[in-house]
Amino acid sequence: MKSKKRSECPLSCSLDLWGDKWSLLIIRDLMFSTKNTYGDFLKSAEGIATNILASRLQSLEESNLIEKLMHPESKVKGLYRLTQKGIDLLPILVEMYLWSDKYFTMPDDLKATIEAGKKDKDGFIKLISERLKNKIA
Amino acid sequence: MKSKKRSECPLSCSLDLWGDKWSLLIIRDLMFSTKNTYGDFLKSAEGIATNILASRLQSLEESNLIEKLMHPESKVKGLYRLTQKGIDLLPILVEMYLWSDKYFTMPDDLKATIEAGKKDKDGFIKLISERLKNKIA
Repeated sequence: MKSKKRSECPLSCSLDLWGDKWSLLIIRDLMFSTKNTYGDFLKSAEGIATNILASRLQSLEESNLIEKLMHPESKVKGLYRLTQKGIDLLPILVEMYLWSDKYFTMPDDLKATIEAGKKDKDGFIKLISERLKNKIA
Repeated sequence: MKSKKRSECPLSCSLDLWGDKWSLLIIRDLMFSTKNTYGDFLKSAEGIATNILASRLQSLEESNLIEKLMHPESKVKGLYRLTQKGIDLLPILVEMYLWSDKYFTMPDDLKATIEAGKKDKDGFIKLISERLKNKIA
């Protein structure tokens, strides 16, 4: 990415890697759901377009935020998972959820999770982080 | 935004308001620098295009994340500042900086600030938050 960077600001460099809605929604799916294939992401409620999904997966993989493995049950499907670099985005997404909780109505199925995150943020981040790390151990 | 929302996911709804690189860079400028006019944002190192800047400012204002005031020194310039809703994004941006610190080289002028944020994150967020709140008090 070095040749493409727009400024010396590390925040701007980071946003070039994952700072768009669709990338963040793919990362959300990998962090907080069992979704891990192209088909899974395509089915998410936001209705991502196939070309956008393919380009975001490629770009996240090139930035080493996710990696693509062979699917154990299918030769044509790939299986995606977060790398450590991707898992390290967790505190950002947790803060995004906490902000969302202030300004949007939480669906019932998320309320308990959000409450757990509010009650003990560090503990919550550690728990989810360990769960994700176990997948790459 | 209600009619436009793509899913019930509060994170997705939030990202529709501010989840793009340019919006986040404008918010960065308002949080961590003294920039507060259209001309100031235009001069930021990332080189935002005039049409994108205008559209993001309008959209952030419509979402009540920023507000536009009369500039005390000029009738033609507007002066932008974060609302409480915008200030509440601070923990997200702090986590973004901390992630950036792991994966990019920090410029010298940011090192002390990042170290302060790492050493006492909650204290740092409180300090900056109070400073921003004083502007809207």
